[in-house]
Amino acid sequence: MSSAAPRTTGHPPVGPDRLWSVEEHLEDILATVRPLEPIELNLLDAQGCVLVEDVTVPVPLPPFDNSSMDGYAVRVADVAGASEEFPAVLEVVGDVAAGQADPSPVGPGQAARIMTGAPLPPGAETVVPVEWTDGGLGEGPVSGMRARAQAPEGAEGQVRVYRPAEARAHVRAKGSDVKAGDRALAAGTVLGPPQIALLAAIGRGTVRVHPRPRVVVLSTGSELVQPDEELGGGQIYDSNSFALTAAARDAGAIAYRVGAVADDAETLRDTIEDQLVRADLMVTTGGVSVGAYDVVKEALAHVGDEDEPGGGVEFRKLAMQPGKPQGFGSVGPDHIPLLALPGNPVSSYVSFELFVRPAIRALMGLADVHRPTTRATLAADKPLTSPKGRRQFLRGGYADGAVTPVGGAGSHLVAALAHADALIVVPEETESVEPGAEVEVILLG
Amino acid sequence: MSSAAPRTTGHPPVGPDRLWSVEEHLEDILATVRPLEPIELNLLDAQGCVLVEDVTVPVPLPPFDNSSMDGYAVRVADVAGASEEFPAVLEVVGDVAAGQADPSPVGPGQAARIMTGAPLPPGAETVVPVEWTDGGLGEGPVSGMRARAQAPEGAEGQVRVYRPAEARAHVRAKGSDVKAGDRALAAGTVLGPPQIALLAAIGRGTVRVHPRPRVVVLSTGSELVQPDEELGGGQIYDSNSFALTAAARDAGAIAYRVGAVADDAETLRDTIEDQLVRADLMVTTGGVSVGAYDVVKEALAHVGDEDEPGGGVEFRKLAMQPGKPQGFGSVGPDHIPLLALPGNPVSSYVSFELFVRPAIRALMGLADVHRPTTRATLAADKPLTSPKGRRQFLRGGYADGAVTPVGGAGSHLVAALAHADALIVVPEETESVEPGAEVEVILLG
Repeated sequence: MSSAAPRTTGHPPVGPDRLWSVEEHLEDILATVRPLEPIELNLLDAQGCVLVEDVTVPVPLPPFDNSSMDGYAVRVADVAGASEEFPAVLEVVGDVAAGQADPSPVGPGQAARIMTGAPLPPGAETVVPVEWTDGGLGEGPVSGMRARAQAPEGAEGQVRVYRPAEARAHVRAKGSDVKAGDRALAAGTVLGPPQIALLAAIGRGTVRVHPRPRVVVLSTGSELVQPDEELGGGQIYDSNSFALTAAARDAGAIAYRVGAVADDAETLRDTIEDQLVRADLMVTTGGVSVGAYDVVKEALAHVGDEDEPGGGVEFRKLAMQPGKPQGFGSVGPDHIPLLALPGNPVSSYVSFELFVRPAIRALMGLADVHRPTTRATLAADKPLTSPKGRRQFLRGGYADGAVTPVGGAGSHLVAALAHADALIVVPEETESVEPGAEVEVILLG
Repeated sequence: MSSAAPRTTGHPPVGPDRLWSVEEHLEDILATVRPLEPIELNLLDAQGCVLVEDVTVPVPLPPFDNSSMDGYAVRVADVAGASEEFPAVLEVVGDVAAGQADPSPVGPGQAARIMTGAPLPPGAETVVPVEWTDGGLGEGPVSGMRARAQAPEGAEGQVRVYRPAEARAHVRAKGSDVKAGDRALAAGTVLGPPQIALLAAIGRGTVRVHPRPRVVVLSTGSELVQPDEELGGGQIYDSNSFALTAAARDAGAIAYRVGAVADDAETLRDTIEDQLVRADLMVTTGGVSVGAYDVVKEALAHVGDEDEPGGGVEFRKLAMQPGKPQGFGSVGPDHIPLLALPGNPVSSYVSFELFVRPAIRALMGLADVHRPTTRATLAADKPLTSPKGRRQFLRGGYADGAVTPVGGAGSHLVAALAHADALIVVPEETESVEPGAEVEVILLG
């Protein structure tokens, strides 16, 4: 598997009817979208985020020599040659529990009953596991200690040790995990559970990371009705705002779904302005094509001060199918990036995968912003056809090196999308792919 | 890759010192833990959950014939033979916008300007894209329509059509995506963004799913200090409660971290009792071994009415390393399942991966509860050694079919864990694995 990194191509001359390649549009987005300003977050709030600084170990781990077993801390010479027949008999001078600050010393002929994680007392050189002793009961090897609460007398009297122990056996040495001054984690590390474990273990309660971006998802279209409401003539249910909100969360964002906005430029502009306060990225669907009611285009094409960098949204045609009409730019005084996706459900979903997901991951500071890709054998009854000059993304089911097309090319076929787990990529120059041929596949996993 | 399904083995005779295999312990857990009672959730709250019922399509999708392009709805005969030289000239009878309920009919010699998604008006048989027309401007082919708000006259006058169109070209037929009565999604489907898209598209605002389990994570040990606090003598930082809370979320749960509880049985019992109200699963770490202060064992071994099924927690020794001591059972009047893991950071994390993660996924009703596994070549300087009779799980880094051990076998080595992405499995009967040999690897993803 390789990463779906863009193949760089030379930019064709600029012009109103210029057809952008998928890579050019993506490059433009990724050149604009920078990782969010780092903030200090509590460990568990930083899960899945990218560390922005090297983290150094302040105290060694473990911070002190401690026992890796429940047993007895002793001197090596006192148990040398011990056996079941000739046990070493030692005087138990007390318990060393985990968390105990200053355990009493262990002298010659003495043993301290020690618990896993408890500090090795002064004088003790090794630990014999309780299973190698009589546990102080005088009746042969035991399988464990009796609970202190039930049998306080276990911390005194005598213990018989049946086996010798080498120096520092069952002792975890101070600093054997990490030493003070070591680099625990490097800047750029993604914080999963084991990394959070390490940060907690070295005493870090907060860390500096790129936060998750807040993504506002907004669908447009006067034909849209919310699910569970009554469908009138000419109306359909709004599915894009749900799909893309879910997809944004899946990509790592904190996503806010704004229901469908009617095809009215002023309403749309007002809604976007209202939402800016909670947006690191705005995503709209619909209204970007060549119709007379394409409200996103109408409302946003000239928004923003064009003298300022990144102001305004540019609408383009891309050499892809589905997803030809796309908008990208920024809105508001803080130049919040905005991606305007087409409105057909499959077009908007494919556009999300190709452009919004990488943008979200770039905002998070992740190095790898792309879905994994692989090569697969086309398993189909008939050739796939694709329009020349357009890169086609067909829905497919991938398994064991083969990919099977699911549903047709229609950008309204949302049922097929729900049964696919991959996108089959048919390059611009290819008009037909024979069954059995090798194709590139983006794994949606 | 195959799934890490348990290999069934015959249970050995029961006894206090019986050594359980990894599979036996896991089988016991999975035989007890059932998917949570289904609840009706809003679509976006159901993301990642498992559908418990087949979902049937109530209305066809699309619900009506509609245009897939911005263009003109016309009769086929009226544009037959049209060319740039001899365009068909038609009377524009108005606009059909998306969401329009009852568009006016299109008669012979007429055209309705139609937007993508708008219903095909009565009488119209096909749609010609606007790019095949003069857009009503009389100046040759156009690249799009002018916005209705700027140019309302576009909905009247004449349009020249430069190309013929077949019947139902650029028309999405009613029901061409899914038909009423079709099964949209089957029970057992995991709801990702495309499935949520489909559910919204057919008008489902809520769905019946197994909810995410609420998991309470509790660490025990009087030696534990919370990160960012001052470390006293004999103390270490609590990392398990952070690591396992993060891991539980990663597995799909809603996880609550309860800080460390001191080694006192009554405090622990009270804390567990307090937490029961928000727990579908409880996870503790520490206090399960053979020491005199092993409070989890002390507090829970006899909790619950033993006459009731699943009451009480059983403590066991497992034939594995790390993670030998384990507890499993249930607590409280509702028999909330409880897994008591050992306290060493690596032991508790490995135990989580092997036992808690599958339990969480079983509570969610997921069919596939296991991490993916694969075979890999051991890349190491020297042989791996492993105690006979114990299945060993070593931390490793996996890449391109090879796995490299990271750090040693010590169960306190949390730094190594943070740099691993796989567990190397050394079977019970194997005491040594040579470099270059093939080993089983659990991918931690």
